[in-house]
Amino acid sequence: MSTTDEALKANEAYASGFKLGGLAMPPSRKLAILACMDARLMVDQALGLKTGEAHVIRNAGGIASEDAVRSLIISHHLLGTQEFIVINHTDCGMLTFKDEELSERLRHETGSAAVAPARFFAFGNVDANVLEQVHKIKSHPWIPRQIPVRGFVYDVKTGKLREVKG
Amino acid sequence: MSTTDEALKANEAYASGFKLGGLAMPPSRKLAILACMDARLMVDQALGLKTGEAHVIRNAGGIASEDAVRSLIISHHLLGTQEFIVINHTDCGMLTFKDEELSERLRHETGSAAVAPARFFAFGNVDANVLEQVHKIKSHPWIPRQIPVRGFVYDVKTGKLREVKG
Repeated sequence: MSTTDEALKANEAYASGFKLGGLAMPPSRKLAILACMDARLMVDQALGLKTGEAHVIRNAGGIASEDAVRSLIISHHLLGTQEFIVINHTDCGMLTFKDEELSERLRHETGSAAVAPARFFAFGNVDANVLEQVHKIKSHPWIPRQIPVRGFVYDVKTGKLREVKG
Repeated sequence: MSTTDEALKANEAYASGFKLGGLAMPPSRKLAILACMDARLMVDQALGLKTGEAHVIRNAGGIASEDAVRSLIISHHLLGTQEFIVINHTDCGMLTFKDEELSERLRHETGSAAVAPARFFAFGNVDANVLEQVHKIKSHPWIPRQIPVRGFVYDVKTGKLREVKG
């Protein structure tokens, strides 16, 4: 059985006990989180979030990319979130390569060039990366200045969040 | 107390019982999921995923944006995932507006224009949207043809996944 089929099997069990079909679309705790896609970071569990409470936006690195900012704008302006959290983590894959090396490797291995993605957003320092993402979000003309945007590093060895202050 | 501070309090409890500090960086089930950011969709729970098993990429709409494709490329080429799942869901906020209306509203409310995001990716039909995202991923020159990419609609009323076939 493929992993996808195993996940579908697990979903049958989940749905059979599902009792939360009446929740509203806007997140009840008015919170949006931007985090890395890393498999060891269980965003809901690590922050004590339950079904329906918060938007969760994730990508490689927890980057405030154009797409993540798009999602945050929709989260706030259409669905009423009022606080944003950015989470990067220790031992991130984005610390292990350089953008140009990866592009070159992909061109070589696949024999193809690609118009997009234009960047991979690899980084060398996780604290500095968190601050840069927080700054990009706070500076966007469509994100209101009064929304708190706080940044954290999640430690994959301890499960603990550490705030990064600028 | 702010919602962020409440989440930090919850993280203290999570970390105090944390026993998974030895997991490796590559997802153990070699799976990557692209899903909507919706607060009612608990990706890990709905698919029976445990800590360390799968990459989770999320944005408004579960769109195979440039950024989501960037993340999938990193997931496969650097961290070894071999199956991709795309999840959209019923009652999605992206069905409730049109891109140009939102841009116009934001320009009006904030008095500012913005270079990015260039698009919001609102859509009118969730099944068609899922198929479009699957197609975009499968067509990318840096995503190997042999990676299965299957698309689903999650029903927020029942907790159940339904596969969308092209």
